[in-house]
Amino acid sequence: MQHNLFSPRTYTERRAQLKRAMGSGLLIFLGNGESPMNYEDNVYAFRQDSTMLYFFGSDYAGVNALIDVDNDREIIFADDLTIDDIVWTGVLPSVAECSSWAGITETHPAKDFFSYVANAQKQGQTVHFLPPYRAEHRLLLQELLGIPCAQQADEASVSLIQAIVEMRNHKTEEEIEQIEIAVDRSVDMHVAAMHATRPGILESEVVAEVTKVALMGGQEMSFPLIATINGQTLHNVDRSHTLQEGQMMLVDAGAESPLHYAGDLSSIIPVGEHFTARQKLIFDVLYTAHRTATSALRPGINFRDVHLLTVAKICEGLKGLGMVKGDPEELARTGAYAIFMPCGLGHMMGLDVHDMENLGEKYVGYAGKEKSTQFGFKSLRLARPLEAGYTFTIEPGIYFIPDLIDLWQSEGRYADLLNYEEINKWRDFTGMRNEENWLVTPTGARRLGHKVKPMTIEEIERAKVTGKPANA
Amino acid sequence: MQHNLFSPRTYTERRAQLKRAMGSGLLIFLGNGESPMNYEDNVYAFRQDSTMLYFFGSDYAGVNALIDVDNDREIIFADDLTIDDIVWTGVLPSVAECSSWAGITETHPAKDFFSYVANAQKQGQTVHFLPPYRAEHRLLLQELLGIPCAQQADEASVSLIQAIVEMRNHKTEEEIEQIEIAVDRSVDMHVAAMHATRPGILESEVVAEVTKVALMGGQEMSFPLIATINGQTLHNVDRSHTLQEGQMMLVDAGAESPLHYAGDLSSIIPVGEHFTARQKLIFDVLYTAHRTATSALRPGINFRDVHLLTVAKICEGLKGLGMVKGDPEELARTGAYAIFMPCGLGHMMGLDVHDMENLGEKYVGYAGKEKSTQFGFKSLRLARPLEAGYTFTIEPGIYFIPDLIDLWQSEGRYADLLNYEEINKWRDFTGMRNEENWLVTPTGARRLGHKVKPMTIEEIERAKVTGKPANA
Repeated sequence: MQHNLFSPRTYTERRAQLKRAMGSGLLIFLGNGESPMNYEDNVYAFRQDSTMLYFFGSDYAGVNALIDVDNDREIIFADDLTIDDIVWTGVLPSVAECSSWAGITETHPAKDFFSYVANAQKQGQTVHFLPPYRAEHRLLLQELLGIPCAQQADEASVSLIQAIVEMRNHKTEEEIEQIEIAVDRSVDMHVAAMHATRPGILESEVVAEVTKVALMGGQEMSFPLIATINGQTLHNVDRSHTLQEGQMMLVDAGAESPLHYAGDLSSIIPVGEHFTARQKLIFDVLYTAHRTATSALRPGINFRDVHLLTVAKICEGLKGLGMVKGDPEELARTGAYAIFMPCGLGHMMGLDVHDMENLGEKYVGYAGKEKSTQFGFKSLRLARPLEAGYTFTIEPGIYFIPDLIDLWQSEGRYADLLNYEEINKWRDFTGMRNEENWLVTPTGARRLGHKVKPMTIEEIERAKVTGKPANA
Repeated sequence: MQHNLFSPRTYTERRAQLKRAMGSGLLIFLGNGESPMNYEDNVYAFRQDSTMLYFFGSDYAGVNALIDVDNDREIIFADDLTIDDIVWTGVLPSVAECSSWAGITETHPAKDFFSYVANAQKQGQTVHFLPPYRAEHRLLLQELLGIPCAQQADEASVSLIQAIVEMRNHKTEEEIEQIEIAVDRSVDMHVAAMHATRPGILESEVVAEVTKVALMGGQEMSFPLIATINGQTLHNVDRSHTLQEGQMMLVDAGAESPLHYAGDLSSIIPVGEHFTARQKLIFDVLYTAHRTATSALRPGINFRDVHLLTVAKICEGLKGLGMVKGDPEELARTGAYAIFMPCGLGHMMGLDVHDMENLGEKYVGYAGKEKSTQFGFKSLRLARPLEAGYTFTIEPGIYFIPDLIDLWQSEGRYADLLNYEEINKWRDFTGMRNEENWLVTPTGARRLGHKVKPMTIEEIERAKVTGKPANA
């Protein structure tokens, strides 16, 4: 229950805007509970639901809330501490006080949430709820609304999702300030990784260094970090390898700001002092593609087109290395590029590192349109015209995934465009990803963060020595 | 899916012993899933259910298992990776291979778990399950057995709980070895905290240093760590204070071993180079009580009696400081001591830091007897005769909790035993806890861990300088 909030007016205006967008109905918001590890009271670090944070600022477990548009009421339901609780937790602000920080004046005990909603349903009000992503919410919705778990996602309110996505996709100045705090801390984490990475240590030692920097200021990481010599494995959780000269580490890690906005950066770090000649070849291809992407960012351009430009540039570079036979733009258009980069160029970022992924990528990144189901394109999370205030990652990568190469080659997939013989010479290369966070402005775009993550070979090799950001 | 297991024989023998204890029935074991933070795919570090680890060694999400005692079958239900998964996660061992590490030869796809249990119920087999502690398990039990969530705890199998508790309460040599790995890492964490603690830094910086040491070897912490200048607040999560000369930090933190056995230590650390004279007075009382406790440990003694001896010794010491008027043993017997130490002397420790808390303290720590509901005694987690192989914490504390002092004084509680006027002179002292981990041997008891956590004033002040364990 720390007092980490914007001004009450911010939250009051957000709710007013949502009420105008919805027009009518009862909007319910489920807060997150504590998450047990191996028994009820041994819990992970608490993380509130982001929509709860956005509209109510309530950053503690055991709160539910609603906006009754029909009757113009905004209520937080939660219980104050008992004296028994206070012995264990110390004195904390009351529910009424915490709620006032977000401009909420009506609070009730937790159990009254159920009777309020039941009563509203009896009165014929339409209850709008969001898709659940925790089992505890599925249980609660089942009890509250009588909807079986399997049907809840389908019965979630599309109009509420769309109204929230429209608001949260456009970041305000004070939100951008929070994101930049998170990005700056994330830069510190990556620079620490560069400084720590050297032959003979374990991957987990880099994990430990990066985690330390994230936690120092009292915040958490925005997602489970990746620190691996197997960068081609996109969601790597094994951290047991010992680093060796000639290898490179891929680190993907970000911090949260005090108000839980996310940063999300990736770096490629040589284990030794320098990148090898072979690594530099791929790095240069990737870096050129990266700057192709960031140069294209501006209001109005469809992010899908930026993705296509970028993967075409990667294919052009790899053509220079003999791995690609055809026209780079054809590789981009057809999806053949996905053998090198099966994921998307970027994703929205805000209170969630994949912003509002719980509300559906279809709404957040596709403006309600259906996504492609084709390998590669189906992993593109953002494919709509960019607008001022959008914040997102730019994270092209080049990966050599032996199982994927073998599969495609055995099927002869895109055999006219891909030179499998040459690709196979790189099959043990692992993978590279270089990632920044960007904001679309009214006239163009800018990189987020005051600190600059080392991006070039020279900057990275220097940061290994100095342990400092590129602009320090 | 790392290969972090005992030998297959260990698991096979554990299951055989459980089958003998149960005699009949179908025993089901639910593995943990991934735990979402703010959306489905943004997850906390995976922690498997400890009973699953104990009998099946399966350390990955998405596994359920059963022991069909009636038909002498032991089955793991889980799905192998698809090629789509492999692109993201890399090649991992198959379910069959992982299962063989625990001596399991029969595996089936995840969905078959449901039909197997349904079929067993049709055949009239008795299904034994453990009390759920995660919402995902409540949903699963509801679907699997048709038992509403609210009734599941009551319908959990007492005979299965008792059989498991009896086994897991007695640690084998190889389990003790794991616990000592965890304790040694925990000692490193505490020594790092001592070395880092100094005026001007934030509590969260100590958190970061301690976390770093826990993660370096690739393991996680066994519980959310406490590092606070408000040691009187037993479950403190605020980490935003700046440390000042004259204050002291209370750190409570432990690591897991590779096989997920827990360590759990607490330390008191002066922020400056030395404890103040006032702090030394309370420290000495606490240390004397601590050694009273550890000297009493042996097979056959009831831990409740060790608790009483210890709190009486605390009261004796505080009598010397004028805070206690009556007979120390009367303060212990009546519960008046709880104004200084509202929690218990210790708890069982193993695969869970509060071992098997999900199965019920009544069974783990009280051998099936009901616990007291009196303030103080109700927080004593262990109160049964000790047996060889028991591993537990010894963690006496002395706390000055202003709200508790005010409450008791206003009620005149134990006014004949407590000198509230003198106690109030210490109301801003905060709190102290000094914690070790102990094992009962066939002939006595010994401290766990090869490394020794600094325990005395001299050892702690020296470790602040050297950053080394007391025996290094």
